[in-house]
Amino acid sequence: MNHKEELLQKIRENKETVGIIGLGYVGLPLAVNFAEAGVKVIGFEKSKEKADKINKGDNYIKDIRDAVLREVVVDKLMLEATTDESRMKECDALIIAVPTPLDRFRKPDMSYIESACLDIGRNMKSGTFISLESTTYPTTTEDFMLPIIQRESGLKQGEDFWLAYSPERVDPGNKQFHTRNTPKVMGAMSEDGMEIGEALYLKAIDKIHKVSSPRVAEMVKILENTYRLINISLINELALLSGKMGINIWEVIEAAKTKPFGFQAFYPGPGIGGHCIPLDPFYLEHIAKKYDFDLSMIHTAGHINMRMPHYMYIKISTALNHHKKAVNGSNILFLGVAYKPNIDDPRESPALEIMDITAHKGGEVTYHDPYISTVKTNEGRVYQSVELTEETLKSADVVVLTTNHKDFDVEFIQKHAKLIVDLRNMIKESSENVYKL
Amino acid sequence: MNHKEELLQKIRENKETVGIIGLGYVGLPLAVNFAEAGVKVIGFEKSKEKADKINKGDNYIKDIRDAVLREVVVDKLMLEATTDESRMKECDALIIAVPTPLDRFRKPDMSYIESACLDIGRNMKSGTFISLESTTYPTTTEDFMLPIIQRESGLKQGEDFWLAYSPERVDPGNKQFHTRNTPKVMGAMSEDGMEIGEALYLKAIDKIHKVSSPRVAEMVKILENTYRLINISLINELALLSGKMGINIWEVIEAAKTKPFGFQAFYPGPGIGGHCIPLDPFYLEHIAKKYDFDLSMIHTAGHINMRMPHYMYIKISTALNHHKKAVNGSNILFLGVAYKPNIDDPRESPALEIMDITAHKGGEVTYHDPYISTVKTNEGRVYQSVELTEETLKSADVVVLTTNHKDFDVEFIQKHAKLIVDLRNMIKESSENVYKL
Repeated sequence: MNHKEELLQKIRENKETVGIIGLGYVGLPLAVNFAEAGVKVIGFEKSKEKADKINKGDNYIKDIRDAVLREVVVDKLMLEATTDESRMKECDALIIAVPTPLDRFRKPDMSYIESACLDIGRNMKSGTFISLESTTYPTTTEDFMLPIIQRESGLKQGEDFWLAYSPERVDPGNKQFHTRNTPKVMGAMSEDGMEIGEALYLKAIDKIHKVSSPRVAEMVKILENTYRLINISLINELALLSGKMGINIWEVIEAAKTKPFGFQAFYPGPGIGGHCIPLDPFYLEHIAKKYDFDLSMIHTAGHINMRMPHYMYIKISTALNHHKKAVNGSNILFLGVAYKPNIDDPRESPALEIMDITAHKGGEVTYHDPYISTVKTNEGRVYQSVELTEETLKSADVVVLTTNHKDFDVEFIQKHAKLIVDLRNMIKESSENVYKL
Repeated sequence: MNHKEELLQKIRENKETVGIIGLGYVGLPLAVNFAEAGVKVIGFEKSKEKADKINKGDNYIKDIRDAVLREVVVDKLMLEATTDESRMKECDALIIAVPTPLDRFRKPDMSYIESACLDIGRNMKSGTFISLESTTYPTTTEDFMLPIIQRESGLKQGEDFWLAYSPERVDPGNKQFHTRNTPKVMGAMSEDGMEIGEALYLKAIDKIHKVSSPRVAEMVKILENTYRLINISLINELALLSGKMGINIWEVIEAAKTKPFGFQAFYPGPGIGGHCIPLDPFYLEHIAKKYDFDLSMIHTAGHINMRMPHYMYIKISTALNHHKKAVNGSNILFLGVAYKPNIDDPRESPALEIMDITAHKGGEVTYHDPYISTVKTNEGRVYQSVELTEETLKSADVVVLTTNHKDFDVEFIQKHAKLIVDLRNMIKESSENVYKL
């Protein structure tokens, strides 16, 4: 029996071991899904603290139910975490779910993928299926990963191992669509790899959509997020113009939504946050340069979004000025530092950047977020969440609504705040003490 | 009884007369809807030829069934057309559905609206409800129309007449959503106007969505079409890059569509056609300048789309070059000049521009379109549709698929054409004689 038949048989008999590299908001739910399906899972995690937590059954991802994690780790012993990459040789499949951030110059930081490929190349056994889930630029799998893995392992794609790309589509906080019921796109470097990948993933995911190559799958993920980036940028730009023209952009969007075809609503905000939309399109912009191609839509969208926190600062300053106050010396309370509502993730949150700008100009900055007790801004300022009381609201010269967490009691806030800058359309009726984006 | 009560009572008793100014693809369906509801309609049309056609019950709009038009005109006598604007004084309501094109410098051509306002101001009686349906820039109703109508009539908005804006959402060829079942947005200059407008329109339209001002309604329409413009531009730009990277963009889009949330598919094409998407966003760009505002997303999108026909020319030239032929002297057959499938409208169709560029470079241009028997290009060339036969296909050095009419027999075309440039993904399997966008 050859490698392929051996692995397919293991998968059929549920005897394969799956290694998941990176136990974050993508890797951990996937690991839990495999483990729930009765597949033995080893999670590879560089952070010893995270690995220890998992092994104690301590959950740190909001979209996973604590009891489910505890069950697969503690009761069923189907999932364990390790920091020891040499254990990759125990795995029949390795799925990479590591971060792909941008550096400070908005260039792709490929170091996590590179490190995963080095670990895999040096440790995997012959006959392993490898899949990358991290968002990245098209050609990464074929031109960046493959050479590292082949060089380090001395093994050959399509014979000794199979390489595929299958982007994650995790939407943190989405109650309707989670890892299992969100269809998954996959492109493999060879037909055998596709056959194996499909058989494997179908244990954790309901539906696999196959495409002809990894680069097509890479472009799919970038298209999905670029679509969001440019539409958010458009609506932000229209929001700024609408403000000047005396038009309530939120009312415009609600009305446009009554069109039953050919429209999807996006909402303005203080900027774009999270780990996908602000970053992924710049991965594409990066590789486009290699093809002598200028992606003008992404470039323009990025330009608008980079400026949004500055415009928001101007809104705050304008509101204070109306009360004959300067930013310098004023108490400025930000409500919400998560990048979107009802989650505990402040990554790339525009609130942090607005806080930096405001603090830099002499504002006395505080924040409250029910989900995030402490944050560090881009410029390294560290804040602790204050309690949201009548007192804290009253003592603020201006309260800035930066995240529309459903826990926020808008009536209570409005009752006690002297002045509000509402960047999320949380206050529906207009009022002279409320400044809206 | 005051004007308002009088008009509302007429509307309740179905005794009002509605004037519709402009009997094109927006005005005529609306006129028919009112007439079908038992409301007397007078259509004002500058073209005597069109007015005569209507009065004979001759239909010229594909989305209206011939029998329905004949019924309301000939049998029920509920709809008549006239070129005589003095008859506006017979009307209780006047609805404007005239074109709002761009001039050759992409500036709004407001002459049709201006002319309608002059006619209305000089002819309407006191107590008339006026509504504009044409797409235009925000503030048109309040700042452009109102002064003309008040000056010419000597009457006062809110007392002697009521002015509103309610944008058309007609999507030619859409089988599911037509004038009646597409919700309609309306913003009036006064509450009385809104009350009257809603009572009136509900006879022809199932659902009215009220907004707080005409300028909000104006922005709604622009947002809807700008959304489409920028998304088509994005996918066109990504299509060009994908071509360079060996990625089939159509496959990418099909895969992205499997994402069950947060994505809407747009398709690349040789450019943007029709009377809305290529024009409307530039109306907004125009007024934005008055507010010292640069709309960079629209600007960039416009830039991409203006260049698309040139890129398409390069595709044609590249394909011919592969067969050791130049454009100069080659027979080039274009299939489809309508701006979208299954309709008979060539307005702003990118096919015409590609034909101009190709003819300009010495190509022997012909075309076939089952719906359009003759066209005039932007540069004034006039062509007659040729028959689509084995002979015409065989005698073409290259066949360019410019519109994906469902009547096109792709198999037949592929069987007889030497070389195909497919700009609409009509040929699914790849072949060395087929060049795709």
